[in-house]
Amino acid sequence: MTKTNTKQRIANTTLELFNNQGVPNVSTNHIALELDISPGNLYYHFKSKDALIELLFSAYEQELTTLFENPFEPTSTIEDAWFFLHLGFEIATRYRFVYQDTEYILGKCRTLSPRFRRILHRYFDALLGLLITLSDQHVLQNCAESVLEELALNMLLVASQWISFKQHLSGEVAISPSESDLSQGIYQVLSLLSPYLDVKNQDHLRTLQQAYA
Amino acid sequence: MTKTNTKQRIANTTLELFNNQGVPNVSTNHIALELDISPGNLYYHFKSKDALIELLFSAYEQELTTLFENPFEPTSTIEDAWFFLHLGFEIATRYRFVYQDTEYILGKCRTLSPRFRRILHRYFDALLGLLITLSDQHVLQNCAESVLEELALNMLLVASQWISFKQHLSGEVAISPSESDLSQGIYQVLSLLSPYLDVKNQDHLRTLQQAYA
Repeated sequence: MTKTNTKQRIANTTLELFNNQGVPNVSTNHIALELDISPGNLYYHFKSKDALIELLFSAYEQELTTLFENPFEPTSTIEDAWFFLHLGFEIATRYRFVYQDTEYILGKCRTLSPRFRRILHRYFDALLGLLITLSDQHVLQNCAESVLEELALNMLLVASQWISFKQHLSGEVAISPSESDLSQGIYQVLSLLSPYLDVKNQDHLRTLQQAYA
Repeated sequence: MTKTNTKQRIANTTLELFNNQGVPNVSTNHIALELDISPGNLYYHFKSKDALIELLFSAYEQELTTLFENPFEPTSTIEDAWFFLHLGFEIATRYRFVYQDTEYILGKCRTLSPRFRRILHRYFDALLGLLITLSDQHVLQNCAESVLEELALNMLLVASQWISFKQHLSGEVAISPSESDLSQGIYQVLSLLSPYLDVKNQDHLRTLQQAYA
């Protein structure tokens, strides 16, 4: 096995353990044991648990940045909003330790705090951009700018917390969320827009929900 | 100092440390040091960190249960909704470690998972009860039952996650939220209802927001 392979294998296994067992409960010894390698071999690739957290956080940051770099077309529809949220939910699911153990990782790795803040602000900007586009096209009706901002903030909160929230609500902790959990989350975010949509777009939203459920 | 006083003093200090430094970062030695008592004295009152988590979780659970036991009058208004949310936000602020380090404490104290789940469901029921009352009085307009359920779920998510979310957004971790942070949170929850209110009640909501900001 090459060095690169080992490093990637360590990262993959760590991500899985972080997501399923919680970051505070996973030690480097624990990771080495899971991979069946010596703690020394792990240490050769990663000097500490912090280094692993930072690597995985960077991967999450990179994927979201790519998502945010594709701005919305001026002709965006409710379906484009669904698709954007879907991609965001997929990334959040893959790196769900970030949302599950936020306080712990920000307390442990101090450099992550401003980076996490920046991600939230860029996510907010992307959502607000989407709402402005939909409002310009009159898909969203009668929305003052302050209303669009309130909406974008609530969308961000629901989108970023849905997976953890759903797990607490169903009493299942640390089980990988299903496709239908994600669809429910996307729908729940889009339901915030529902009262501002005309009947045609409200119906379209319900159809999308049924198609993905 | 009496035994009861010491026990209460330990609980108070632990709550403060949990809220401000994060539960995973606070050890029993850390608590003893902060109180200037010996680890043995702490151990005499609490056999483990888990025992402290469970005591504080029970106090939080008890305060919320008392809040949920007061049902809404059939004549409830937007102002009553504001007051109910205010009391809920005060409790959430006082015990914010529960929301900040949820995964960690549920992973550590396995008996808390079904209790936390029950609290979320009772909170949801209380919010849905409020929405049904407001809908019966036509304060909320044109709301199907499914819409009230979607609304209650989003209200619960925003209400339960607001404090942590606001801290991440402003990049301030572990600083006690201000009165204006709480007011903004309550307003953010009530903004979910805004599109279903008539103009008079929308104005009333804006006035409440300004009065509390």
